[in-house]
Amino acid sequence: MELVTIDDVRSAAERIRPHVLRTPLLPARWGDAERPLWIKPENLQAIGAFKVRGAFNAIGAVTERTSGPVDVVAYSSGNHAQAVAYAAATFGLRAHIVMPEETPNVKVQATRDLGARVVLCGAGEREKVADEILAETAGVMIPPFDHPDVIAGQGTIGLEIAEDLPSVRTILIPVSGGGLASGIGTAIRALCPQATILGVEPELAADTAESLREGHRVDWSIHDRNRTVADGLRSQPSALTFAHLQRVLDGIITVTEDEIRSAVRELVYRGRLVAEPSGAVTLAAYRNAATPPGETVAILSGGNVEPRMLEQILADPR
Amino acid sequence: MELVTIDDVRSAAERIRPHVLRTPLLPARWGDAERPLWIKPENLQAIGAFKVRGAFNAIGAVTERTSGPVDVVAYSSGNHAQAVAYAAATFGLRAHIVMPEETPNVKVQATRDLGARVVLCGAGEREKVADEILAETAGVMIPPFDHPDVIAGQGTIGLEIAEDLPSVRTILIPVSGGGLASGIGTAIRALCPQATILGVEPELAADTAESLREGHRVDWSIHDRNRTVADGLRSQPSALTFAHLQRVLDGIITVTEDEIRSAVRELVYRGRLVAEPSGAVTLAAYRNAATPPGETVAILSGGNVEPRMLEQILADPR
Repeated sequence: MELVTIDDVRSAAERIRPHVLRTPLLPARWGDAERPLWIKPENLQAIGAFKVRGAFNAIGAVTERTSGPVDVVAYSSGNHAQAVAYAAATFGLRAHIVMPEETPNVKVQATRDLGARVVLCGAGEREKVADEILAETAGVMIPPFDHPDVIAGQGTIGLEIAEDLPSVRTILIPVSGGGLASGIGTAIRALCPQATILGVEPELAADTAESLREGHRVDWSIHDRNRTVADGLRSQPSALTFAHLQRVLDGIITVTEDEIRSAVRELVYRGRLVAEPSGAVTLAAYRNAATPPGETVAILSGGNVEPRMLEQILADPR
Repeated sequence: MELVTIDDVRSAAERIRPHVLRTPLLPARWGDAERPLWIKPENLQAIGAFKVRGAFNAIGAVTERTSGPVDVVAYSSGNHAQAVAYAAATFGLRAHIVMPEETPNVKVQATRDLGARVVLCGAGEREKVADEILAETAGVMIPPFDHPDVIAGQGTIGLEIAEDLPSVRTILIPVSGGGLASGIGTAIRALCPQATILGVEPELAADTAESLREGHRVDWSIHDRNRTVADGLRSQPSALTFAHLQRVLDGIITVTEDEIRSAVRELVYRGRLVAEPSGAVTLAAYRNAATPPGETVAILSGGNVEPRMLEQILADPR
């Protein structure tokens, strides 16, 4: 299997530069003295999550390979939906986003507001519906993580960290489908070989931790994975991302639901940043696991939290 | 009266560069089409507010003028206290911060945690107490706004805006003692002469709006000014800052308490940023006043909000 290379990540950085925020690496004076902490605030991206990086790189690559407009298709109920809609609109392309019927209306509307056509589908139908749209439109599918261009796009975060803090000792990255950790890990392995690269999963959706221990992908039921409050971390790696994770990760830390909620609160009051639970798992790991001493970067992957959930977490983080 | 110049601001930028975050200018896709919006997120500074810029410039200038260590003295119950404590500790200097007895303990402790000596004083005593400490220690006073080095330090925000968005059409700046608006205004007048520079005050502490209309400083009672939820905007300009404001401001917008609270909420959910009420007045002005068309920058000056207040605002912004 061919893995993404540092050159792919560098090409992605060139491609997305005009469209994506180069986030600062924020020094968090409130970290431990022996593990100085920096936050990489991807919640500040235009749609509130790192997903724009992969989407702009994948769609940008499509536009380079094709002449004339092409439709793009994606299925997602989360941040990938808005990222694809936003990137497609920027390139003047039509986007078709397949979403489950139970998607909260606010997310459907946000995706439509970005100019996309939203197609609602029943449970288990999303691939069939997406395939039909692909056939009708002769379009291109932009998957949320299972694609080299998406992985390379997310990897640009690693490039920026290597530029801003080349002596980094530990990097903490949320793991769901694994595209983010695959990309960042690829960049950091190449540029900061001294760094320890750790994935972070909720205890309630720790399929990748188990898979890495077993040496092959282990399936957790979607029922089990849906238990975590971190709704962006309920996917599982593909063969492609799992191969990257086996290569680049030094380990995976799991965190509890209470630890995640406390981390959301800490980011609000000490970091002045709004994180969704999935984006706060890395601070939860920093606070509750024995990570290595030295300069530490926690990836804050996104900030799209439902108002009611944030209010509840702030009122009672445990 | 000698006013701060663009050269003073440029010198300040050199002086504070190693110590202060160069904040990104965040594009806010959720602004109006005819007034594209950017946020300057000074809440992401180490102590959660722009005040570090003035403090590092003023204390840095002191260290250049003196040989050997010198004590620094400030009186403040707000963000200036922590900014001076933090900057003094960075330069290895002892800081004495005079605070009113009624200062919330969390702010006293935060200032002590930064290594400062906190001296509590009764109502109306702060200048006397600070003068005594100055005499005892042969130290240097770092005022919150009434000093050219402080003004020049805050002005570095304007330099950064001019670099990142030279075509800016409108800049919205919170006004309290006026140091922030004096500094930014000085930089923008010099570098972006096309820009309209607007101060923003709470309706309940609109002394500067009235003073500019009258052409001289008008005193509002502290009882009146204390009515606003924007507790960082309860000071009044000095002769020095008022002279700058008369020169650099094109006008002042006033906003209501409800507008401020709604803006805090909007920054959380659309900007994924935590603002204190004083820091959100500029977005309140953008949303509720007829500001000029064209590219607009709102200064988010700080993010130090009491948990109970933020929870209340999120639960019920009006």
